[in-house]
Amino acid sequence: MRAAVMREGRLLVEDVPEPVPGIGTVLAETIACGICGSDLHALKHTDQMKEVAAAAGYPADLDGDVVMGHEFSARVLELGPGSSGVEPGDVVVSIPLVFGSAGLAQVGYSTQYPGGYGERMVLSPAFCVKVPNGLDPRRAALTEPMAVGVHAVAKSRIEQGEGAIVLGCGPIGLAIIAALRLKGAEPIIAADFSPKRRSLASLMGAHESIDPRERAAIDAWTAAAGVRTPVIFEAIGVRGILDDAMLWAPRNARIVVAGVCMEPDPIRPLIGVSKELSLHFVLGYDPMEFNQTLGYIADGSIDVEPLITGEVGISEVPAAFESLSDPEAHAKILVKPALG
Amino acid sequence: MRAAVMREGRLLVEDVPEPVPGIGTVLAETIACGICGSDLHALKHTDQMKEVAAAAGYPADLDGDVVMGHEFSARVLELGPGSSGVEPGDVVVSIPLVFGSAGLAQVGYSTQYPGGYGERMVLSPAFCVKVPNGLDPRRAALTEPMAVGVHAVAKSRIEQGEGAIVLGCGPIGLAIIAALRLKGAEPIIAADFSPKRRSLASLMGAHESIDPRERAAIDAWTAAAGVRTPVIFEAIGVRGILDDAMLWAPRNARIVVAGVCMEPDPIRPLIGVSKELSLHFVLGYDPMEFNQTLGYIADGSIDVEPLITGEVGISEVPAAFESLSDPEAHAKILVKPALG
Repeated sequence: MRAAVMREGRLLVEDVPEPVPGIGTVLAETIACGICGSDLHALKHTDQMKEVAAAAGYPADLDGDVVMGHEFSARVLELGPGSSGVEPGDVVVSIPLVFGSAGLAQVGYSTQYPGGYGERMVLSPAFCVKVPNGLDPRRAALTEPMAVGVHAVAKSRIEQGEGAIVLGCGPIGLAIIAALRLKGAEPIIAADFSPKRRSLASLMGAHESIDPRERAAIDAWTAAAGVRTPVIFEAIGVRGILDDAMLWAPRNARIVVAGVCMEPDPIRPLIGVSKELSLHFVLGYDPMEFNQTLGYIADGSIDVEPLITGEVGISEVPAAFESLSDPEAHAKILVKPALG
Repeated sequence: MRAAVMREGRLLVEDVPEPVPGIGTVLAETIACGICGSDLHALKHTDQMKEVAAAAGYPADLDGDVVMGHEFSARVLELGPGSSGVEPGDVVVSIPLVFGSAGLAQVGYSTQYPGGYGERMVLSPAFCVKVPNGLDPRRAALTEPMAVGVHAVAKSRIEQGEGAIVLGCGPIGLAIIAALRLKGAEPIIAADFSPKRRSLASLMGAHESIDPRERAAIDAWTAAAGVRTPVIFEAIGVRGILDDAMLWAPRNARIVVAGVCMEPDPIRPLIGVSKELSLHFVLGYDPMEFNQTLGYIADGSIDVEPLITGEVGISEVPAAFESLSDPEAHAKILVKPALG
C-alpha cells in the first residue's frame, strides 16, 4: 500500500508491505488522519520521542521504517481470526493502540503497525469506537487530539464558577479551550502570538484572545475576572514558560502543564512555595474520555470544523509537515488517502 | 530588656529598648521560644529572606536590629489601650503576626516587634490562643512548627488508605510525619542521612526510617506498600531533590513541596508529563490549623517532647544557633529567657 514513511529523520512516500490482521485484530482503511505536532517532533527528534515513550511506559518502536498517524477515522475492511466487536463497513475511531501478537503497540509509533499516513492499518476492536451515524468521519478524526483537551480539563478539576488562562493556542491549547467552554468555565483567556491561532481560540470558545506582546494574560484575566484565581493551562512547552507562569500566577493558582518541554527547565521553588502554587502535569486521556469526546463532536457540543485547515493526499504529507511549522497557515491538516 | 539581636549577619546578646504595647496590643513575657531553621537562614542570608517575604507578600522588616523568634509561648503581662480578648496572667501561643500602628508585622522578623529571643514582646490578642490549662508551655511553644506539618498534610489531601514518603526529617519533616500519623496514613516511610533524625522520625510516627545512602525510599515504600502510590513530601529544599523525586515517583504521584530551595532548580517537565505527576508547593498554615495543632499537642495526639533536645537562656542563643547546624546534636532548641 502507499504510505508516508519516516526513515532516519526523513519522510518518504513509498509502497510499503500491506498490513495483515492477526488473531483478534482487524484491517481497516484510513479515511482521514490528522497530522499531530508530536509527529513533527518525532521526525526531527526521534531519540527524544523514544525517551518520552520510555518515560511514560508507552510501547514505541521507532528503530526502522515507521508509518506515523494516530489521529484517525477508518472503515473496517476485514476481520482477522477470532475478531469480534466491529463488522466490515463500520466507520470507527480508535485509541491508537493495538494488541497484537507481540503485545501492545502504538498505532503510528511502531515499525509493525502503520498509522493513518498509510492507506490501511490494523486495529484492535477493543480500542475502536463506532462513529455515530451521520458524523462526518473527517470530524471524527479529531477525537484523539480533542480528547487530550478533555482530559487536561478533567484533571484540572476546574469547577463551576472558575475560569482559566490558556497559554498557547496550538491544537492542544485549542482542544483545552473547547473542553473548558463545554465545562462552563468563564472567563477563558487565551494567549498566543499568532493572529490565526487567536481567532481559532475565539471560535473554540475563548472569551478573550490576547497577544502576549501587547498585553499580559494575567492583566486580561484581572480586567475580566477581578480577584478570582484562574486555572492556568500551559500548552506551549518551551523552556522558561513554567517559571514565568509561576511568577505572575496569583496565590493558590493551579497550573496544568500540557505542553511538553523536552529539556531540563529551571523553576524557582521559592516562588511556588511563597504562593502555594501547584503544578499538574497531564498527558493523554483515558478510554472513557476518548468516547466522551467523540460524543461531544457528534452532538455538536464541540465544533471541530474550524480546526480543519487543510486536507491532503498521502503524496502531499511531506509538504504538509513543512507547512505546519507556520502557525498562520494551519491548525489541523487531515491526510486523506483517497485524495491520492 | 535582654535579647539576642540580629545585626548585619551577626547575633549579639544585648540590652534593647523595652517593647511598649500600643492600641489594641498587649505586652507578654516570653516563656519558651523554639529556634527555627528559617532564623538560621535569615541570619546568614538576610537578602534571600527578604526576597521570600516579598514573594509571599509577608511583611518583613529586616533593615536594622531584629530580635527573631516566632515559635513561642508567652504570659500576658499588661494590656495596651483598647485591648481585649486576653487577660494579664494568661499563657498564650500566637500566630507570629501583630497588628500594630503601622499595620501588620511579623513578630520576630521586624525591627519594631521583637520575637521570642527577647524577654518580652508585643502581641495582638486576635492572633493569640490561650494554652489549655495543664499543657506545659514548653510544649505549647512547638505549636507553630507543628502547624506547618498539619497544613502540609491538609494541603496534600491525603486520604484514608494512603501512605507517604517523607524526604528529610528536620523539624518540618518531623512535623509532617506527626501530622500524617494523626491522619492514619500508612505506611509512612521517612528518609534522612542522620541517625538521630531517623530515630526521631520513628518516634513521631514513621513506620520505617531509612538512610537513603543504604536504601532508596521508593524501594522501602514498595516493599511495605506494594503497588500503591505514595504521597511524597519533600522537606529538604536543596537543588536537585525535586527532579530526583520526579524521576523515581510512580505514575500519578503527588509531590508536596515543603522544603524551600532558594535557587532556580531545574526539573524535567517531560518526566512530570509522562507520569502525570503533580507538585504542590505549601507554606505556613491558617489560623484554624494553628488552633487545631495546639489542641493536638494539648490532648497528646502529637507528642512533641522528643523534639525538644535542648533548652538555653538568651545568653546562649548564639551558641545554640551554631550547634543546630549539626543534625546529630539537636532537633528543636528552646530559648527560655528565665534561664538567663
